[in-house]
Amino acid sequence: MTVNFAVLGAGRIGKVHAAAISQNADAQLKAVADAVPQAARSLADNYHCDVKTIEEIEAAGDIDAVVICTPTDTHADLIERFAHAGKAIFCEKPIDLDLERVVTCLETVDRLGARLMVGFNRRFDPHFAAVRQAIDNGAIGDVEMIQIISRDPGAPPAGYIKSSGGIFRDMTIHDFDIARFLLGEEPVTVMAAGSVLTDPQIGELGDFDSASVILTTASGKHCTISNSRRATYGYDQRIEVHGSKGSVAAENQRPVSIEIANADGYTRPPLHDFFMTRYTEAYAAEISAFIDGIVNDRKLTPNGEDGLKALALAEAAMTSVTEDRMVAVGELPRVSRLG
Amino acid sequence: MTVNFAVLGAGRIGKVHAAAISQNADAQLKAVADAVPQAARSLADNYHCDVKTIEEIEAAGDIDAVVICTPTDTHADLIERFAHAGKAIFCEKPIDLDLERVVTCLETVDRLGARLMVGFNRRFDPHFAAVRQAIDNGAIGDVEMIQIISRDPGAPPAGYIKSSGGIFRDMTIHDFDIARFLLGEEPVTVMAAGSVLTDPQIGELGDFDSASVILTTASGKHCTISNSRRATYGYDQRIEVHGSKGSVAAENQRPVSIEIANADGYTRPPLHDFFMTRYTEAYAAEISAFIDGIVNDRKLTPNGEDGLKALALAEAAMTSVTEDRMVAVGELPRVSRLG
Amino acid sequence: MTVNFAVLGAGRIGKVHAAAISQNADAQLKAVADAVPQAARSLADNYHCDVKTIEEIEAAGDIDAVVICTPTDTHADLIERFAHAGKAIFCEKPIDLDLERVVTCLETVDRLGARLMVGFNRRFDPHFAAVRQAIDNGAIGDVEMIQIISRDPGAPPAGYIKSSGGIFRDMTIHDFDIARFLLGEEPVTVMAAGSVLTDPQIGELGDFDSASVILTTASGKHCTISNSRRATYGYDQRIEVHGSKGSVAAENQRPVSIEIANADGYTRPPLHDFFMTRYTEAYAAEISAFIDGIVNDRKLTPNGEDGLKALALAEAAMTSVTEDRMVAVGELPRVSRLG
Amino acid sequence: MTVNFAVLGAGRIGKVHAAAISQNADAQLKAVADAVPQAARSLADNYHCDVKTIEEIEAAGDIDAVVICTPTDTHADLIERFAHAGKAIFCEKPIDLDLERVVTCLETVDRLGARLMVGFNRRFDPHFAAVRQAIDNGAIGDVEMIQIISRDPGAPPAGYIKSSGGIFRDMTIHDFDIARFLLGEEPVTVMAAGSVLTDPQIGELGDFDSASVILTTASGKHCTISNSRRATYGYDQRIEVHGSKGSVAAENQRPVSIEIANADGYTRPPLHDFFMTRYTEAYAAEISAFIDGIVNDRKLTPNGEDGLKALALAEAAMTSVTEDRMVAVGELPRVSRLG
Repeated sequence: MTVNFAVLGAGRIGKVHAAAISQNADAQLKAVADAVPQAARSLADNYHCDVKTIEEIEAAGDIDAVVICTPTDTHADLIERFAHAGKAIFCEKPIDLDLERVVTCLETVDRLGARLMVGFNRRFDPHFAAVRQAIDNGAIGDVEMIQIISRDPGAPPAGYIKSSGGIFRDMTIHDFDIARFLLGEEPVTVMAAGSVLTDPQIGELGDFDSASVILTTASGKHCTISNSRRATYGYDQRIEVHGSKGSVAAENQRPVSIEIANADGYTRPPLHDFFMTRYTEAYAAEISAFIDGIVNDRKLTPNGEDGLKALALAEAAMTSVTEDRMVAVGELPRVSRLG
Repeated sequence: MTVNFAVLGAGRIGKVHAAAISQNADAQLKAVADAVPQAARSLADNYHCDVKTIEEIEAAGDIDAVVICTPTDTHADLIERFAHAGKAIFCEKPIDLDLERVVTCLETVDRLGARLMVGFNRRFDPHFAAVRQAIDNGAIGDVEMIQIISRDPGAPPAGYIKSSGGIFRDMTIHDFDIARFLLGEEPVTVMAAGSVLTDPQIGELGDFDSASVILTTASGKHCTISNSRRATYGYDQRIEVHGSKGSVAAENQRPVSIEIANADGYTRPPLHDFFMTRYTEAYAAEISAFIDGIVNDRKLTPNGEDGLKALALAEAAMTSVTEDRMVAVGELPRVSRLG
Repeated sequence: MTVNFAVLGAGRIGKVHAAAISQNADAQLKAVADAVPQAARSLADNYHCDVKTIEEIEAAGDIDAVVICTPTDTHADLIERFAHAGKAIFCEKPIDLDLERVVTCLETVDRLGARLMVGFNRRFDPHFAAVRQAIDNGAIGDVEMIQIISRDPGAPPAGYIKSSGGIFRDMTIHDFDIARFLLGEEPVTVMAAGSVLTDPQIGELGDFDSASVILTTASGKHCTISNSRRATYGYDQRIEVHGSKGSVAAENQRPVSIEIANADGYTRPPLHDFFMTRYTEAYAAEISAFIDGIVNDRKLTPNGEDGLKALALAEAAMTSVTEDRMVAVGELPRVSRLG
Repeated sequence: MTVNFAVLGAGRIGKVHAAAISQNADAQLKAVADAVPQAARSLADNYHCDVKTIEEIEAAGDIDAVVICTPTDTHADLIERFAHAGKAIFCEKPIDLDLERVVTCLETVDRLGARLMVGFNRRFDPHFAAVRQAIDNGAIGDVEMIQIISRDPGAPPAGYIKSSGGIFRDMTIHDFDIARFLLGEEPVTVMAAGSVLTDPQIGELGDFDSASVILTTASGKHCTISNSRRATYGYDQRIEVHGSKGSVAAENQRPVSIEIANADGYTRPPLHDFFMTRYTEAYAAEISAFIDGIVNDRKLTPNGEDGLKALALAEAAMTSVTEDRMVAVGELPRVSRLG
């Protein structure tokens, strides 16, 4: 079976997914849509496929699946439209910045029995996936404490920050998803600290550039997260899980692994400086998992509920910082109702 | 000048300090005291020195300095006695488990102008000291976020736990001191989580075996601490400081650094499994610093105030866990008054 | 400009190069040839191109370049044919197992002014290339001593060994090329030891499975090479260059970089277990360099002379082992004439 | 039982051994001798022991063992004298620079049944010893190929070079001993290259500053050695043993293990820059082994034969470089006779 695809949104991440689709033997890219016709045309030309409107894609009998890479505020609407159209849906995170909107969107998805996968690509990074596999294999016994360090080389432009929903919804959300992926149990409390340390402009926009979080689960497991929008040494992405029998850690990645020794010491090059090169393999594996799920009729993971729960943790963290207190995830009424 | 010493308490740590004194060209061990005469005798014989009572040491004109290695509940009293006796005092941490008692003890020390150093040995670990030196050298710019991971190979016996004052006063206190040592600014808020994950007996004693903490300073710096009483792979002691221009990390230490490669992978041996072998160099450097401070009439560091402030953070962490809330260090009245 | 390609030989390495060509924006795969029609057909179908005979490719006006991936004993003949046909030629190493035959082939190439690149892919490995770049940047001063460790996970089948020309011509030849690439000066003497340690069958075929070599240059630089046909821990490929101001080393590569710690120690997974996954990036970069050389009319490197000189070092090593003595490269008459 | 010691030679290495003796519970330092009375006096004062002449030490009934740290050209004579005097003898390497003289000295030692240990301290380095233990434990199967890299931070003074016997007898001799220690089989052939790359003055003295060696054993095992008198990054001392089931490597050692990350990359400090700090633990363990051998009447290792065989390999390497050829160790008549 070949899965026929349309990509919605021909920007940076749309291109990544189009490339992944084109290299997958079980998939074919059929159409591209973008509000900017030229962008759609350019991407379509690369892959010898058609430019179509959203409406045409909804109606196209030969399109099985859509990949939603449009701006965040269109995600929930598009998910609902393509749920109605009966297409399998892959949507970049987040579903929406508003928890309530996510809940109503997922109610629609559930009611229609639509297939939805959410783009938490890091679960598919081979190193992070190997951490999970080590846990599943029993290599470290019961998970007890997780450390996630996640730092960007530099902050995104002010325009991006403004509509990002804040550091917890935009950046930490990946870490919240990884925490859930590895804890094997839902976090029930959130304590968070946020600071402006790297760029006053971020503070002026009402956001933070540095954040620390402690999540705890009902059985007492802990996860700490450390975020910064600036790391001079590159894209710092580490995970470490301590368990009853041992620990497992995923190391940072660098494009070139040489070491130069001289009177100043032993120096290895900086890390990847861009998330797209850092997570190249993860993006390809993520789309493969989506295709595989469709072809073999397997449960899609991470799904809408994963998107919702990560967002709920972000909301709880936001509240924790704003109100200087520990927040119970159960305080968020809709989440607990769905939970 | 030779500094003449008496060691009070001939137990495990007393022996370590006695050895350090005997190897220092500027010091001489003159006397040992211990409630158990045999213990005192055995240690004294090793170093060809006298067994004396506390009273004799107070009165001894030829003893310049004492090293207090007796049980915790005797520390504050002994500090006060030897402050009156005009001896230079090195006291193992903590000064007392009760913050109020520490405050009154330090008031006595201050009033008498006594010289007091507190045994936070980790500041003298060559690797941790090099972290501090890197910060001082400007190698990482302004300190922003610190990660401390501190795990013991296994829990102490129940009897020890019972009188330890709890994980925050007994174990995390070292990390609180290191946090203060590296932050360059006092923590003002504490958020902590505590769990019983490794040994139910610890829970029955009202203590935790696993803890996570976030400290924040007035300017918005963060420090996260992760503690566990059990690490199968040895004594896990890592520090990492992220700053505006880079980061610096102290790596774990192992007694033997070989690597065996085979079909199962590449394996290095476990870490040190005991704090006394892990911190051998630190203990020696600590006593050297004490002696150097006396000989050259330099400020002793860490001092009583450092002991007090680390204990205050422990108390705040305890309150945070107990009351499920963020605690401002300023809530502790005596600390703020002294601060 | 688009370079139109034919791939000769649709085996394992032919497929690798076909994939690299298809992903290069400046190239197009036009035809595939193989003695086994089915193999040619299958590869051609993958890339929507034609199956052609060698004769048809020679005659094809729309084919600019050929990639020779056929058995070794056909390489020299095919190079000469396509030199006459005026095509740019990429040929897998070695040009021929017989030094004399390589010399006559290269005389033809030179006389016809044909463009020839030889497939020493390791020069294009990003890590090894970075070692060279560090040298070129002056990071280690003058090159003095090189260590190359090159071990295969396991020996090839007996059938392969039989026609391989022996370990020095088949395996060490890559290391000889890397040695020349990094020494910046031609080796003038060769001392080699060969042993059968891993598989008696290899000895019965008159070959070795373990080899050590010292190369020296006129100015006194040394390069040592260590080869084994068996490494339980994976594809062991390390290079280290020691110079007057420092050293630079390329580390081994593994598909997944996690570390598991427990009571047995700290374990990272084995290395790549296959040269095609180990050198994936190198193969793609190699073909890109070939295309770039054609498009921009740049000197192709490594070229026929590089192939000849690496083979001459292999021959000298063989003589050294057979005659238990140091061999001067200048003893090989044809090489010195061409040199 | 307490072993009573005299140290002959109060220079740098004499001090190291005196300190090791003084810290060993089974030993006591009784006397020090040195041609320079002041040097002897200073060392004796440190350890509250006597200054004696060689003659007095020979005659002293209360001295059980001597540690010979005098200039090399006195070693063989002193060994013979103290063999006659019935003392246990620890002698710094080498016994003599002349193979013939070593042979006659050892004949005396054997005839008198004297106890002699030779100071190849590296066998006692905890990391190198752990490599040997891993081999003994079967962790890597049968030893096949060994790589030894041994580089000094800088060359010794010209005066030292002049009387050193050349790089192979002075520096590589340690590596020859380690090769024998780990191969588990005697080397039978030696191929060596020597160059002057770091300092022309060394060449003017007829010596080399850079050397590469291949040793082979009768069963076909190989050991390669790489030496340089200059390494800007510190004291580079690595050993790697590849076997049928895996490999084991001892890593380099540095005084401080931190890592600083910034835009230039990840940097760890240089290695130890001095052999005495690099091998502190080895020196202490070596003397402990000597004392333990005496107290428990165990075979002393490494002994005179080990000293002889390492020297023979040095001589063979020298011949290999001088005569540009492979040398069979059996060519050296006295060695083969003793074998």
